[in-house]
Amino acid sequence: MTGLTRLSLNQITTKRWSLPEAVRGCVDAGIPAIGLWRDKVAETGLARSAKLCRDAGLTVSSLCRGGFLTATDPQDRRAALAENLQAVEEAAELGTDTLVMVVGGLPAGSRDLAGARQAVADMIAELAPHAGDFGVRLAIEPLHPMFCADRAVVSTLGQALDLAEPHPTAHVGVVVDSYHLWWDPQLAQQIDRAGRSGRIASYQVCDWTLPLPADALLGRGHVGDGHIDFRTLTDQVTDAGYTGWIEVEIFNQQIWDTPGDQTLRTITERHLAHVAAP
Amino acid sequence: MTGLTRLSLNQITTKRWSLPEAVRGCVDAGIPAIGLWRDKVAETGLARSAKLCRDAGLTVSSLCRGGFLTATDPQDRRAALAENLQAVEEAAELGTDTLVMVVGGLPAGSRDLAGARQAVADMIAELAPHAGDFGVRLAIEPLHPMFCADRAVVSTLGQALDLAEPHPTAHVGVVVDSYHLWWDPQLAQQIDRAGRSGRIASYQVCDWTLPLPADALLGRGHVGDGHIDFRTLTDQVTDAGYTGWIEVEIFNQQIWDTPGDQTLRTITERHLAHVAAP
Repeated sequence: MTGLTRLSLNQITTKRWSLPEAVRGCVDAGIPAIGLWRDKVAETGLARSAKLCRDAGLTVSSLCRGGFLTATDPQDRRAALAENLQAVEEAAELGTDTLVMVVGGLPAGSRDLAGARQAVADMIAELAPHAGDFGVRLAIEPLHPMFCADRAVVSTLGQALDLAEPHPTAHVGVVVDSYHLWWDPQLAQQIDRAGRSGRIASYQVCDWTLPLPADALLGRGHVGDGHIDFRTLTDQVTDAGYTGWIEVEIFNQQIWDTPGDQTLRTITERHLAHVAAP
Repeated sequence: MTGLTRLSLNQITTKRWSLPEAVRGCVDAGIPAIGLWRDKVAETGLARSAKLCRDAGLTVSSLCRGGFLTATDPQDRRAALAENLQAVEEAAELGTDTLVMVVGGLPAGSRDLAGARQAVADMIAELAPHAGDFGVRLAIEPLHPMFCADRAVVSTLGQALDLAEPHPTAHVGVVVDSYHLWWDPQLAQQIDRAGRSGRIASYQVCDWTLPLPADALLGRGHVGDGHIDFRTLTDQVTDAGYTGWIEVEIFNQQIWDTPGDQTLRTITERHLAHVAAP
């Protein structure tokens, strides 16, 4: 891994940019890939988004996101299934094999965490073969445990792998996101497990910075600004056999308020300093 | 477990009360035990604090807290060692065998998480025999992963047990705190492991409520106000063989601003409704 050859911009990082602006920004910055968001794709149009990326020579490293699979009401479950099938088709049309799945939190008013986790497993089992038919892999993303109640009842890489393993590797993988996983005492062991079983669908990076902001979702920092040792983490992911894209995905209001080209300069500098092989 | 017989007030929950006020409050509310904090004990005086609890017939269920063991500078390490030995002696004088240990976050400027965790293991090994000499057990408290960088590099019950196991059960145990651990997919299995090996030194309860406040430390709620299933969790702890105190420990500015007697009424009601055996 040298230079920028494996760097991808997850477009939430430049939230104010439309999809065409993000594509243009990546080309200007020498970033060869982009992770797209469904709302931005919808804004530009699916076919046009796909063509813009293709024409610019950008690889679409992932589509964010499917998921929200924990509903217990049958009608809500059918709606979630339909929504996710739609997301699978969009991923295929955009030319990416990776659909990032944020699995959802506890249903409103529920304290049944085990039940919500079982609902996720059941929905993954329903969705995975359809995803496979489209050449798309469901990439289960464990989120930081502070989002367990409201956003993702899958909190560790080990748990995501347990969910993935009943399915073919081509149908279900996992996301290794530095922000969500860096604290896990089992992380090295689980990255090794994930890599050796061919389950790492995406490696996403951003840093853990303090204090947490009022909206805990928006506390992520540029690589190098926080507490995560990216050299060690990236070596673990690499040693486990992962050779895919390294996506920079940052939720942070201050970064969103920064001009996109400046953000991309910071991203490429930090990638070269902390993530890419020296 | 019936009624209030196993309920303990951790005095941080009534932060505005002095130690004598908290003792009086427990007696009035029919709460038979109290978890003390070192700063409150110091304010009242060690011998007087011990006598107040004894004379009131209150059991001291724990002393909060020792810890902060991750310093790398030799002088800082010696200071932490001395501070913790002092805490051990205070626990003994107060008549409790449980010293709660919050192990500390990353040293300033460090990203060496593995190193910080090793420093904790080394310090526990130094402290444990001394604690044993005083009849005090170091109760390692895993904190929620959102506190990993700044407060505790021990984030899961499994990790705390790994740290405890090289030492005699009478010297080192673990704290099961609902707020910090409820999300862990391995929780049931690790509670079982902890209970069967006689390592549960304390069971602390408060609820996970959202949104997180600006100071994430203060986001804890009364039992029943949040997302944690206390019936299931308490059954797991009980089935693992734990018969000790159930301490209510809540960090929450709004609760701290509520008159203490009212807080204790809420605590006893919630304990009867959600925690004590029906």
